[in-house]
Amino acid sequence: MKISINANRCEPSPMRKFHPLALQAQKMGKTIYHLNIGQPDLPTPEAFYEKIRSFDSSTVAYAESPGMPILIEAIRAYYKRLGVELDTDDVLITSGGSEALLLTCLSILDPYTEVIIPEPYYPNYTTFVHAAGGVIRALHTGPEEGYHYADRKRIERLITKNTRAILVTNPGNPTGVVLDEQQMRMIADVAKENDLYLICDEVYREFCYDDKYGIPCMGRFDDIDDHLVIIDSVSKRFSACGARVGCVITKNKELQQAILKFCQSRLAVATLDQVGASALYSVDEGFFARSKEEYRRRRDLVVEELRRIPGVEVTMPMGAFYVMASLPVDNADRFQRWLLEKFDDHGDTVMFAPGAPFYETPGKGINEVRIAYVQELPKLKRAMELLKLGIARYRQEMM
Amino acid sequence: MKISINANRCEPSPMRKFHPLALQAQKMGKTIYHLNIGQPDLPTPEAFYEKIRSFDSSTVAYAESPGMPILIEAIRAYYKRLGVELDTDDVLITSGGSEALLLTCLSILDPYTEVIIPEPYYPNYTTFVHAAGGVIRALHTGPEEGYHYADRKRIERLITKNTRAILVTNPGNPTGVVLDEQQMRMIADVAKENDLYLICDEVYREFCYDDKYGIPCMGRFDDIDDHLVIIDSVSKRFSACGARVGCVITKNKELQQAILKFCQSRLAVATLDQVGASALYSVDEGFFARSKEEYRRRRDLVVEELRRIPGVEVTMPMGAFYVMASLPVDNADRFQRWLLEKFDDHGDTVMFAPGAPFYETPGKGINEVRIAYVQELPKLKRAMELLKLGIARYRQEMM
Repeated sequence: MKISINANRCEPSPMRKFHPLALQAQKMGKTIYHLNIGQPDLPTPEAFYEKIRSFDSSTVAYAESPGMPILIEAIRAYYKRLGVELDTDDVLITSGGSEALLLTCLSILDPYTEVIIPEPYYPNYTTFVHAAGGVIRALHTGPEEGYHYADRKRIERLITKNTRAILVTNPGNPTGVVLDEQQMRMIADVAKENDLYLICDEVYREFCYDDKYGIPCMGRFDDIDDHLVIIDSVSKRFSACGARVGCVITKNKELQQAILKFCQSRLAVATLDQVGASALYSVDEGFFARSKEEYRRRRDLVVEELRRIPGVEVTMPMGAFYVMASLPVDNADRFQRWLLEKFDDHGDTVMFAPGAPFYETPGKGINEVRIAYVQELPKLKRAMELLKLGIARYRQEMM
Repeated sequence: MKISINANRCEPSPMRKFHPLALQAQKMGKTIYHLNIGQPDLPTPEAFYEKIRSFDSSTVAYAESPGMPILIEAIRAYYKRLGVELDTDDVLITSGGSEALLLTCLSILDPYTEVIIPEPYYPNYTTFVHAAGGVIRALHTGPEEGYHYADRKRIERLITKNTRAILVTNPGNPTGVVLDEQQMRMIADVAKENDLYLICDEVYREFCYDDKYGIPCMGRFDDIDDHLVIIDSVSKRFSACGARVGCVITKNKELQQAILKFCQSRLAVATLDQVGASALYSVDEGFFARSKEEYRRRRDLVVEELRRIPGVEVTMPMGAFYVMASLPVDNADRFQRWLLEKFDDHGDTVMFAPGAPFYETPGKGINEVRIAYVQELPKLKRAMELLKLGIARYRQEMM
């Protein structure tokens, strides 16, 4: 029985592949500090639950394929506040940013066509690109240069006649790199000049820790309407990952029609979650400021603690809620497995996402990990302590 | 800016493509009887809402990628009652049966590989197969033979070295054809002998109007574990289409792993909907009997009324809640457009799904429509009256 070539080209998620081992460790009575998944612990705004509780149809019917008008209008109003005017047709609601990416890839990629992505990047991009038969051309960056990728020459060098798109995550997951206005403009120009789609995954938009960045949004450039595809989601913005509500935004009419066909084929996104999500967009003004402040404190603590561990190297992330750290271990994947199977300190252990799958270039990221700082400060402090103890013991026993 | 070949190979959904015209008609004050979409009007069991209201986490977090254990266990118990033993790993929760089909196609199809599907078939299958680059080989059936397709020779004749799978919908959408035990066994044998996947879309399983069929489930054959993929969903069974909760069931370990990679890449299915859906599986015993009885009454009324319209031909459907009807019009697509734009009777008009997109073979189904009998009896009666009036006036004015 054959498995498709494209499925074979995909890998298990590095954030989730240790899940069975984690269950095993929990069965053995261990407490795990989960810093492997970008699952914020902040409460989802009460408005989400209230709106769902007030849903009063007796039948949970299909929503409209492009998304429910109440949600699309809420998103348009939110973008208007960012300075971006969207038509109703420009927004297609998807099951999280994930589906937005998958449907975009299916709509623009043919087998062997290429997408340029700065690495390290969110590993699930690989699956979405490969599902469509596409190939990732990685723009390599590393810890030694703080993962900065906004270099016109280096981007242009990767463009071939098979290139269809440039994909950037801004602010960056896993690196926390944020593009400034000038860098965004440069990348927009490169896409425009070379007739490429520019896919901007901006789901972490509100999480920029230096005010100079404001709230980045590529949609403010109104000369790249045919090129730009914005990937968005309520998951991180409103701490509502489990709602699975996102959207793909484009003003390219042909692309809208192509993605809409896929939206129609899967009928609709879950009705109650769309209803709930529509209420999220009217949370009070202070919500984002408070969330950001909390994550900034967490970032500062994690980076400070990491810098105290001998042999660990880390670049200060400027956005999102991740930090890439280089550890003094031979192999972060092996180390993670060991942390779950062999290590504990008073019954506690810790989980990260091993770094290699964030790179397309073989041999890169082997000793790096992505740490999601999505726990309260005391928990993060304890997690960093566990990391420190784990590294010391692993080096003694395993290296 | 290029659109992918596979996206260009897809068509807008025939059930949904008239949505803009319908909105227009509604704006003009028309009332539309919607028989175009399989959206049941029966209430979703209260247990769904109750379970969601009792959800008490402050954060709506990601669920597990393969699905929430509470839902998987509910599904396993339901299948056990059908006589099918499933392991936890055999069930992967998906966003409706739609995602189950898409991920299955992405996992087993390479470009130019083939899936055999009896036609007329659910048109969204085309999009799922084309998304993966695959090709549909239609096993043609028509109204003249009651859409019966379970003929070993005709199936075998379509098998080539590129065939990867046979896909059947049982009970059938749009035809209402139900396979008996012997026919199911024959198709299972063909798949087994030719080393093909057998994809069984059984989302209408509980809606069989002749007791001789029982509750059909291909999973009862335990010698086709490596071949069988069951597509399932709560949408029709529990009148919960908007929950977008389905699953793909297979005992083929390699296929499980392949589909799981795609599941991990999109992180999870919506949490609250999974929680709600888990409660659906414990509705009282009488629920299915009552639903089936209601649909049987509707079927009988619709078929009776259709048979009274001069020139209309119809086969009595034995399952699901659709009927294909051949109308005395030149083109059902043109007729549908006319019904929305030009026709009304006291402000009322009616919508069906035009038949041609249910066929892969060019020129077939032109004057057929699929009628979903998912409204109360008086509404269905009025809808049939509108169809009758519409046909008469259309023939006068347009033919």
